Amino acid sequence: MSLNSFGHIFRVTTWGESHGPALGATVDGVPPGVPVDEGAIQHWLDRRKPGQSKYTTQRREADQVQILSGVFEGQTTGTPVQLMIENTDQRSKDYSEIAEKFRPGHADITYWQKYGIRDYRGGGRSSARETAARVAAGGLARAALTQMVPGIEIIGYMTQIGPHGIDRARLDLGQIGENPFWCPDAQAAGDWAGYLDGLRKSGNSVGAVIEVVARGVPAGLGAPVYGKLDTDLAAAMMSINAVKGVEIGEGMAAATLTGEDNADEIFMGNDGQPVYSSNHAGGILGGISTGQDVVVRFAVKPTSSILKPRQTITKSGEATEIITKGRHDPCVGIRAVPVGEAMMACVLLDHLLLHRGQIGENRGRIG
Amino acid sequence: MSLNSFGHIFRVTTWGESHGPALGATVDGVPPGVPVDEGAIQHWLDRRKPGQSKYTTQRREADQVQILSGVFEGQTTGTPVQLMIENTDQRSKDYSEIAEKFRPGHADITYWQKYGIRDYRGGGRSSARETAARVAAGGLARAALTQMVPGIEIIGYMTQIGPHGIDRARLDLGQIGENPFWCPDAQAAGDWAGYLDGLRKSGNSVGAVIEVVARGVPAGLGAPVYGKLDTDLAAAMMSINAVKGVEIGEGMAAATLTGEDNADEIFMGNDGQPVYSSNHAGGILGGISTGQDVVVRFAVKPTSSILKPRQTITKSGEATEIITKGRHDPCVGIRAVPVGEAMMACVLLDHLLLHRGQIGENRGRIG
Amino acid sequence: MSLNSFGHIFRVTTWGESHGPALGATVDGVPPGVPVDEGAIQHWLDRRKPGQSKYTTQRREADQVQILSGVFEGQTTGTPVQLMIENTDQRSKDYSEIAEKFRPGHADITYWQKYGIRDYRGGGRSSARETAARVAAGGLARAALTQMVPGIEIIGYMTQIGPHGIDRARLDLGQIGENPFWCPDAQAAGDWAGYLDGLRKSGNSVGAVIEVVARGVPAGLGAPVYGKLDTDLAAAMMSINAVKGVEIGEGMAAATLTGEDNADEIFMGNDGQPVYSSNHAGGILGGISTGQDVVVRFAVKPTSSILKPRQTITKSGEATEIITKGRHDPCVGIRAVPVGEAMMACVLLDHLLLHRGQIGENRGRIG
Amino acid sequence: MSLNSFGHIFRVTTWGESHGPALGATVDGVPPGVPVDEGAIQHWLDRRKPGQSKYTTQRREADQVQILSGVFEGQTTGTPVQLMIENTDQRSKDYSEIAEKFRPGHADITYWQKYGIRDYRGGGRSSARETAARVAAGGLARAALTQMVPGIEIIGYMTQIGPHGIDRARLDLGQIGENPFWCPDAQAAGDWAGYLDGLRKSGNSVGAVIEVVARGVPAGLGAPVYGKLDTDLAAAMMSINAVKGVEIGEGMAAATLTGEDNADEIFMGNDGQPVYSSNHAGGILGGISTGQDVVVRFAVKPTSSILKPRQTITKSGEATEIITKGRHDPCVGIRAVPVGEAMMACVLLDHLLLHRGQIGENRGRIG
Repeated sequence: MSLNSFGHIFRVTTWGESHGPALGATVDGVPPGVPVDEGAIQHWLDRRKPGQSKYTTQRREADQVQILSGVFEGQTTGTPVQLMIENTDQRSKDYSEIAEKFRPGHADITYWQKYGIRDYRGGGRSSARETAARVAAGGLARAALTQMVPGIEIIGYMTQIGPHGIDRARLDLGQIGENPFWCPDAQAAGDWAGYLDGLRKSGNSVGAVIEVVARGVPAGLGAPVYGKLDTDLAAAMMSINAVKGVEIGEGMAAATLTGEDNADEIFMGNDGQPVYSSNHAGGILGGISTGQDVVVRFAVKPTSSILKPRQTITKSGEATEIITKGRHDPCVGIRAVPVGEAMMACVLLDHLLLHRGQIGENRGRIG
Repeated sequence: MSLNSFGHIFRVTTWGESHGPALGATVDGVPPGVPVDEGAIQHWLDRRKPGQSKYTTQRREADQVQILSGVFEGQTTGTPVQLMIENTDQRSKDYSEIAEKFRPGHADITYWQKYGIRDYRGGGRSSARETAARVAAGGLARAALTQMVPGIEIIGYMTQIGPHGIDRARLDLGQIGENPFWCPDAQAAGDWAGYLDGLRKSGNSVGAVIEVVARGVPAGLGAPVYGKLDTDLAAAMMSINAVKGVEIGEGMAAATLTGEDNADEIFMGNDGQPVYSSNHAGGILGGISTGQDVVVRFAVKPTSSILKPRQTITKSGEATEIITKGRHDPCVGIRAVPVGEAMMACVLLDHLLLHRGQIGENRGRIG
Repeated sequence: MSLNSFGHIFRVTTWGESHGPALGATVDGVPPGVPVDEGAIQHWLDRRKPGQSKYTTQRREADQVQILSGVFEGQTTGTPVQLMIENTDQRSKDYSEIAEKFRPGHADITYWQKYGIRDYRGGGRSSARETAARVAAGGLARAALTQMVPGIEIIGYMTQIGPHGIDRARLDLGQIGENPFWCPDAQAAGDWAGYLDGLRKSGNSVGAVIEVVARGVPAGLGAPVYGKLDTDLAAAMMSINAVKGVEIGEGMAAATLTGEDNADEIFMGNDGQPVYSSNHAGGILGGISTGQDVVVRFAVKPTSSILKPRQTITKSGEATEIITKGRHDPCVGIRAVPVGEAMMACVLLDHLLLHRGQIGENRGRIG
Repeated sequence: MSLNSFGHIFRVTTWGESHGPALGATVDGVPPGVPVDEGAIQHWLDRRKPGQSKYTTQRREADQVQILSGVFEGQTTGTPVQLMIENTDQRSKDYSEIAEKFRPGHADITYWQKYGIRDYRGGGRSSARETAARVAAGGLARAALTQMVPGIEIIGYMTQIGPHGIDRARLDLGQIGENPFWCPDAQAAGDWAGYLDGLRKSGNSVGAVIEVVARGVPAGLGAPVYGKLDTDLAAAMMSINAVKGVEIGEGMAAATLTGEDNADEIFMGNDGQPVYSSNHAGGILGGISTGQDVVVRFAVKPTSSILKPRQTITKSGEATEIITKGRHDPCVGIRAVPVGEAMMACVLLDHLLLHRGQIGENRGRIG
């Protein structure tokens, strides 16, 4: 029972504070013989790095990952892999004010109440910087996934910023890398740019919805009742900083559908595999993957670190104000896209190993 | 790593199939000295039982719980408590058809593919009957919660059936027991009755949204980063049959809010405790409870067991049709309300124990 | 983290007190498709039952096991298996004395101090009756092992009673079932009979050493560093009531050996598999099985429930005496033999599944 | 389920290979507010370091620990603590021979068979170098223990080298630091020196027995049935490299004792606490601490890395010889003493937290 770890067999423990010497991920249960090196993992970290666009915070972290164990002559050994990222851009700021005040909407007050001590620099352990460790672990997971199930693809993108959603009729995954928003709808991306510029100028922020799709996932993954694939995915996404909602397939909208509309009927495909008429289920039935695209969405709340003053209290219980100075993130959700992908990769790999452990191959033939 | 268990210290393992001899919950980590008896737990099961209204399936299960261990002279001993419910109303039906076909929207096909064997009677282990075991465990958790934190209250209710939501301006918790829908809005309850009658007659079904609120929860519960209170609650609710989305506080709507609108500002209360201007956060910040109401919502999809024929395949891969005969559940979500409450109780108790274990008392004073 | 459970994938949770209504084992992670029924498990329980000989306590428990879940049409489903044994011979004794006194050498005092409540009838949860649940779980494990690795054999026997050991030169496994002591040395069995008769008459008791050997175990099982096969076997045996020492291979005697004497040298066998010159290692190197016999030994202390009065205190702190009346067990170790075998079976199956999960097949070829 | 982790709440994950860039321990569940710094942990590492005497291997590792997270302004934060030790003395040896051969008595062959890849330099992950990480984690545990239970002491020493044991009548803990063997019997220490000199000259090695005693341990620690204190201690010690046997109290000798001799009778002490006439139980009854000294012993086998040639095979299955060149360790057990102490510290702290979690304070009063 390690509360800073997730996963059953492929088990990731993250460590490190925003302004500590380093942060990282200790990854246990890695299958042996997976080809990997620092460059392969660095690739995924570079996609997440701050300072990518004018819409994300300008902390200049190199986020260089080092592999300190578990890899030998270019392959995993099956022993724990230590992925470490040294913090290099900890501004020598004056933290005396923030040490005394609790930023509303952040974990400052709850960490203080629970632990009686908190590293207040940049949020300490509660900082979204922790997600860099997740992305590194996700890179390792992807390397293993590629080897075990070559057809698997994991693609994340934003479907909504504030009240502005994409038009799914215009959805084109090829657009994702073509704008600063991981947006698969070029037109929406243009609208979002103007919208966020306005927010940045007014010193405000907004939330977002991120969708992560996994394709080529074999049927049979998931361990009912409490290790269901959707249960573990929900936990994985909800654990990301600032997430307030998680959906599978139709998600909350499933409540509005009737049984007739929601049904994914089943047919036999040409290749002797079942096919479905639709995918309201998001690729998971009874907690087990069907072989269809696994579709997960999560909502990120807007950051409270905005330029407008907020009412709060100090540690000594005095009323005070707090205001974020200088640059701020109008939409922290943007940087959560690679994090969602990383969590999807870790959970899928874990379930591949878990299924192989208890069951071996899928045992039920159809046809 | 037990995939049929949840919880860290207060750990519940459920077992049993819909049409097996019995089902139950093995509950470990129960604090000793909690007064409890079969009647106390039966109370919670009776609220869940089938056959309560014309809107829920008419399987006549007595759902009588027996305590087989872990309680002595009216108190828990701190050893595992075995809660068993014998199945008494397993209809001696002809299952030959259902043994061969996969009901769309159910776990039949995925269980078959994964395990190569499935108890097809009533869905076997994938049946919502499993939730009776959760409700029993939740009853035990409530007994312990009452003793440890006397002010804690856990209240569940429906906020939406199909497209019809409650009006929060009319929300009156006193109404919850006054209609067959756990609905806190008397007017909406009336509308829902008519709506569901229509669905039942047309042989269709619809989804629902359930909200569970916990009051009097101390601040400081939750174990970042992967044992966060919201993470465990999301997993708990997502693990319930037919759930497709989980929300904390504003949930998916948090994406649409701006930082200015979403902020819960902090003030000092008269009793020397922090108070908040609002509760968009749903009582959890950084994965740790703030002392405000913990607010969780989840969406239940409509059942696919409807009277309209559905296209599917047989085990041998032949196209076929399936149709539910006789009675059906127009809204399975109704029966999920006590289940959501039970999961909330189990998770809260678990976190009280976990916090006490690693930390002891809350260590940070304010003021 | 369930403290009444053991195992990683094949995970067993036992429950039940000596004089409660029932006891049992909730077994999770069972591979699906294993043929099993109540008779198959009853076979193993019958070997353990009290009242087998004049040397073991005469509580007449039928120890009838019921399978309440997880088995369908004669095969495991991959869902949790509930094995329940109802207690039928709870003597309606007068427990008022034992409720107040702590029996020396038993867990009475520590359970009282820790929990503040104890079921004092027959030791409650601390009773060796709990091992019946382990033996049932072990029967289920054996069924799965037989299917997965047909050549595996697990054989337990006593190597020592009090100061009297067997002569390994006379070791004949065929003798094990031919005497009341699971003794593989017919001559020693005769000596032990006389020795124990003397102890029984004088109202005394003695300890014993049990050895459990597993043959046909594939190489490669065990998960370094903290899930080593020997680590899990040591924990499994030490968890048995009254056990005070555990050994692998040479055990404590390895300390007295020199490197020259202790080395198991390696050669290629005729079948292209490595063979070893000896087996001082007990079949485990670096925590991983070598393919040789896995040899585990454990020591059971003598029971303190003897006919001679013992000095102790009452709950109110008064000095007093306690004496066991009537029949007593001159050597409780005898009944631990089937328990040791059951633990070996559970741990081996667990590691087969674990290895298959993280690694798949053994990846390293020799030759 | 992390196989490179141990502990329930205070959970340690070690990582790192003998000749990799670094090794370390990720420690989760550390209570907050414990004063600690690198020097405090370094103290314990220095006691373990190679090159301390002519009897232990001369690899010159500085073993400098760095704290990379989880400590802020001199106190633990309750977040994971990353303890890293960089490897500085990896000899640039020619490993081509060792890459092909399996050293008898080591994990080379089993790691190869299981994983299909092994870092053969110095044993890779199977190297006893991993124990440096344990000692670092143990240093952190001791800091927390000191704060939680000020009277706790943990003392380890050797009781036997080869066939030569100490004389317990001469046992003087003050002697432990006065000789190179952690020996509490000055006279035996002198004998051992001559004996080991002889072994070193003849190129042979021998095993040893280490005893670890914990004093001032409160009664009530341990979580029956499978989280018993002795179960966790047995697992902890058995997981140490080269350990083949573990004993609690009388250990294997308990088998030879009669009930009359083995009984620890109970009396009331002057301070209103129970006292025992003896401590055959080793401080643990029913898996729970009694308040007496907790006494654990473990046997370390002799290293197979000796100067005499050993028969073995190569990866390609050819018969060959292997011989250790240069310096060797005549008794690797000597360096296991601080490791045993570290494991005792980790397990005791873990159980203090676990007990506080599920139970709170000891609930049962006597008197």
